[in-house]
Amino acid sequence: MRILVTGAAGFIASNLIPRLLERGDEVAGVDNFFLGKRAYVHQHPRFAFHEQDLLDLDALIALMKEFRPERVWHLAANSDISYGTKFTDFDLKGGTLVTYNVLEAMRRCDVRQIVFSSSGAVYGEPAVMPTPEDYGPILPISLYAASKAACEALITAFSHNYDIRSWIFRFGNIVGPNPTHGVIHDFVLRLRDEPSKLVVLGDGTQAKPYVYVEDCLDGMEFGVASSHDSVNYYNLAVDDQTSVREIAEWTIEAMGIDRASIDVQYGEGPRGWRGDVPQVKLDTRKMTALGWRPKLSSAESVRATIREVVEQFRNGPLS
Amino acid sequence: MRILVTGAAGFIASNLIPRLLERGDEVAGVDNFFLGKRAYVHQHPRFAFHEQDLLDLDALIALMKEFRPERVWHLAANSDISYGTKFTDFDLKGGTLVTYNVLEAMRRCDVRQIVFSSSGAVYGEPAVMPTPEDYGPILPISLYAASKAACEALITAFSHNYDIRSWIFRFGNIVGPNPTHGVIHDFVLRLRDEPSKLVVLGDGTQAKPYVYVEDCLDGMEFGVASSHDSVNYYNLAVDDQTSVREIAEWTIEAMGIDRASIDVQYGEGPRGWRGDVPQVKLDTRKMTALGWRPKLSSAESVRATIREVVEQFRNGPLS
Repeated sequence: MRILVTGAAGFIASNLIPRLLERGDEVAGVDNFFLGKRAYVHQHPRFAFHEQDLLDLDALIALMKEFRPERVWHLAANSDISYGTKFTDFDLKGGTLVTYNVLEAMRRCDVRQIVFSSSGAVYGEPAVMPTPEDYGPILPISLYAASKAACEALITAFSHNYDIRSWIFRFGNIVGPNPTHGVIHDFVLRLRDEPSKLVVLGDGTQAKPYVYVEDCLDGMEFGVASSHDSVNYYNLAVDDQTSVREIAEWTIEAMGIDRASIDVQYGEGPRGWRGDVPQVKLDTRKMTALGWRPKLSSAESVRATIREVVEQFRNGPLS
Repeated sequence: MRILVTGAAGFIASNLIPRLLERGDEVAGVDNFFLGKRAYVHQHPRFAFHEQDLLDLDALIALMKEFRPERVWHLAANSDISYGTKFTDFDLKGGTLVTYNVLEAMRRCDVRQIVFSSSGAVYGEPAVMPTPEDYGPILPISLYAASKAACEALITAFSHNYDIRSWIFRFGNIVGPNPTHGVIHDFVLRLRDEPSKLVVLGDGTQAKPYVYVEDCLDGMEFGVASSHDSVNYYNLAVDDQTSVREIAEWTIEAMGIDRASIDVQYGEGPRGWRGDVPQVKLDTRKMTALGWRPKLSSAESVRATIREVVEQFRNGPLS
């Protein structure tokens, strides 16, 4: 199959692309290296990488016309939620407008399938937890989540009007090798540079379901293979949660830092930042009803990722 | 109170502004005359009209800095749903980007209240009818509705992060004098020019709750006065529905056209166009629990509007 991957130098795509290539797909990837890293770009005879910005609709149409993908994995996004609160047009451009461009290019080039990485953040601070896929009202509290909700709505409208089949996955926190951001990435890099101090945003009680990236990709591929509505949408998570306090302690331990020698400074209040949803539990029954189960729990995913990221960033962050 | 109204030359705003002025508010209005009409712009010593495009963020900030509104009634939008299917970036620009600009200008100028005209179209084709406000999933089927959903999400995120209070009203079909679009507007103008033929989009069975504009404005003002959460959201509708077939027949009758002399040609299928939601029923209990009731039923609203629009457009559409 001919597959176009956006955000191809990013965390999730850089784990996806080797899987696609292994099974024989022809893959093209796009990234502008805003968050993505050159070190994460795969080299393979069946993989063509294109450094371009998805805000350039004409360039994207030209690429689709030439490559003629049968399916798009649209994984490009700003994934740093707090960044979007400082720069209010960041998720609008890097999320909403980019997704419009992807859909419009698909419409013009007769590309009929899109797989999209959404987020459980679209539910805001829901009254029902674990939160099921049909929860309403959708009242996101971050500009990141607002953009994911906007992207979902664009996808469902394009699907209805232009015969595009879509799979929307609302992620928990995805972790694993090749991170570009996130709490484990940040803790490891900060402790590497200053092992005597760790400043934590919020009081450390924030707790979310962490999903290992291979489970995430298994789940997405399983969902795509198993569901055939015009619009298919799933929570993609695990049932347990891990707290930021646990992640801090496990990271310190994994880096071999003497706990007595380090000053861990917690912030005040349950949120890491404005727009952070402090407690997340996603109802996973729609995915498990399809027959899919994650291999790792949240705690196992976090511990495995800490080990890998400590190793990967031993000599500094990758560029 | 100092109030800024967007879409000030449009249908709903041109009915709102006289009410605000009557009670002593200072009002500024913005419109770019894309859908709005010069004939609908009010003249009053306490009303300042500004012809500008809301896509120009700097101009909007300059206006807010000078006028210092306490509240924004954000009514500007493309309201022609089928148009948005032909030009796929139309609602994105005229709805989503414009709403971002309004919110960003408010944030930068410390304006803390927004009243927003959303639509029951955000629910797409819901499994529950009448559809309540907390219905999910939100899977809109038109780019118009996708944009309204995106605007709502932007509003809730800005409300959470920047201490902006918001009131979101999901409208049924609003009707009344000063229309710029819509089925009554279209039927009246087409029958005036060619009284022997009426082509109807869809089979005429499409049925929706039509709300008289004065009821709509009463309801919005009542909702704003009665609810004080950070984000307040309501369906604004009536409990009965009117079909397109009824509207066609009543318009022919009101225009004094001999029914036997006219060829009414219905289309095929229940939708007026792709993205049209053929059957709409909105649960109005959240508004009625506040103590508000519409004065006119859907049928009464449609009949009153037909009379007014026939009269208003007797000599052609207004410019």
